[in-house]
Amino acid sequence: MRALTIDARGVRLRDDVPAPTAVVGEVRVRVTHVGLCSTDLALARGYMDFRGVPGHEFVGVALECALAGRRVVGEINAACGHCAACVAGGDRHCAERTVLGILGRPGALAEVLSLPERNLREVPANVSDASAVFTEPLAAAFAIGESVALVPGERALVLGDGKLGLLCAHVLARAGLAVTLAGRHPERNGLTGLRVDHVGPLERAGRGYDLAVDASGDPDALPALLARVRPRGTIVLKTTSERPTTLDLAPLVVDEIRLVGSRCGRFEPALEALASGSLAVEPLIVARYPFARVEEAFDHAARPGTLKVVVELDS
Amino acid sequence: MRALTIDARGVRLRDDVPAPTAVVGEVRVRVTHVGLCSTDLALARGYMDFRGVPGHEFVGVALECALAGRRVVGEINAACGHCAACVAGGDRHCAERTVLGILGRPGALAEVLSLPERNLREVPANVSDASAVFTEPLAAAFAIGESVALVPGERALVLGDGKLGLLCAHVLARAGLAVTLAGRHPERNGLTGLRVDHVGPLERAGRGYDLAVDASGDPDALPALLARVRPRGTIVLKTTSERPTTLDLAPLVVDEIRLVGSRCGRFEPALEALASGSLAVEPLIVARYPFARVEEAFDHAARPGTLKVVVELDS
Repeated sequence: MRALTIDARGVRLRDDVPAPTAVVGEVRVRVTHVGLCSTDLALARGYMDFRGVPGHEFVGVALECALAGRRVVGEINAACGHCAACVAGGDRHCAERTVLGILGRPGALAEVLSLPERNLREVPANVSDASAVFTEPLAAAFAIGESVALVPGERALVLGDGKLGLLCAHVLARAGLAVTLAGRHPERNGLTGLRVDHVGPLERAGRGYDLAVDASGDPDALPALLARVRPRGTIVLKTTSERPTTLDLAPLVVDEIRLVGSRCGRFEPALEALASGSLAVEPLIVARYPFARVEEAFDHAARPGTLKVVVELDS
Repeated sequence: MRALTIDARGVRLRDDVPAPTAVVGEVRVRVTHVGLCSTDLALARGYMDFRGVPGHEFVGVALECALAGRRVVGEINAACGHCAACVAGGDRHCAERTVLGILGRPGALAEVLSLPERNLREVPANVSDASAVFTEPLAAAFAIGESVALVPGERALVLGDGKLGLLCAHVLARAGLAVTLAGRHPERNGLTGLRVDHVGPLERAGRGYDLAVDASGDPDALPALLARVRPRGTIVLKTTSERPTTLDLAPLVVDEIRLVGSRCGRFEPALEALASGSLAVEPLIVARYPFARVEEAFDHAARPGTLKVVVELDS
């Protein structure tokens, strides 16, 4: 089948990649749409020494089992189901997990992918393919609420007005927080339809926030955020970086700040938000490419300041 | 009066330091015992560009107001009492606060100190002076429970078997956690009378802890702790350092770990624990010096691996 691969020679569309074979408990999915994510670009640059087929934000049509013929999205962590983490309900932290297009499992930039049946969710009829492709990153934004109490009326600062930052800002606004967004693109204010106050660069953001979210993708951003939350405030770290961070931890101790790592989230709240129509995600799409031009799509997505690039495999 | 001072010429006992004058709402205290803390040593090395009288772990006799003649200890943060942080009950985070012997307020290594009356606590009759001098660091250990839920039966790792690490380990053991202690001094196991498993160096500590406490004083310790807590586990950072830390934050995000800064605590639980007799702190004292030899006490406390050095001002 056709699939995009990352190897020592770079990012290439090939037509000789073996299609996934039948696995008990898994469902093969004919992929129709894939969103490109900063993690995909990092993998292409060598993050995690990735080799194989990337892609994890997808919509497709299930090819077998109870969901056959249905439009689906899929949670990307495939857990063993029986270790201590899985039994405790933390299957996204199963030590034996594979992760679609990231760790030990071929990804969605292929004609067909395979995932455990329990990972798949049917897309509600009123959610477009172009919106459904945001289910995974939107779930990652909703994951903030799994780790931190979202208190209506509290002041939140989101650093980074890229794809994930915009989604995080709007998830917090939806939860009733007063959200300030800082980043390089004030013109993106209001893009997703919810009330967020975009102040431009972080220097204009003020201080004393109850909650701050680092969705900047910049490993050097954290020290500046430490000074902007109130004592006993919380900073959620959403972005993984390939470089280490150097910071003075004394303010974290003196001000008793909590720094919380946050990664993937459950799909249900994201699908509910998309089905409710209150969150407009399609305006985040800046380009659509047919699968034949997926290498070009990668180049486009890698240009600084690019929002969502979508690859359409059925066009 | 006699007082120890830190200035450009170093640490010196002088006899020409002005005694504190009467201040409305404050109580002067004749200091009898002072414990030396790692923070005092850091201030002497230049941390926070400190100038003045250090010392903040004290026992003394109140000289005025309702507590006159009583044996007292004192919370070290003197808050303004009317800012937003104070009104919300977070007076230890008042932005206008002074901190005894650390920030804007002469410390306890003096014949007389002054603190707001509301900061003072009478020492229960059955708590010795030598035990009461641990009230402040023990309160700092109890502060862990103000920031983190202490769940009986959970596995906790404390890194650092110095003064603060031992107190933290024993506060956690008292709360019913299964505590592993890592550090350079396995001979200190059992020193405070509660059950803690001292494993020696961190490399022998194993993995998968629900909670870890960094009381090592080493800014480079945190990266090693990140790998030892379970996904969604918690690391409490107790020690402030004068140097920055360089670490790869990706594991914090991927494993959704929370890193919580923790500083001073309320005195009440510490005084209750001391009065209950279940926590033996006096074995942590390795030397007692009269005030005339306080400079020598500083030198002693600064030797690596030294537990508590106490200065006796009434001897």
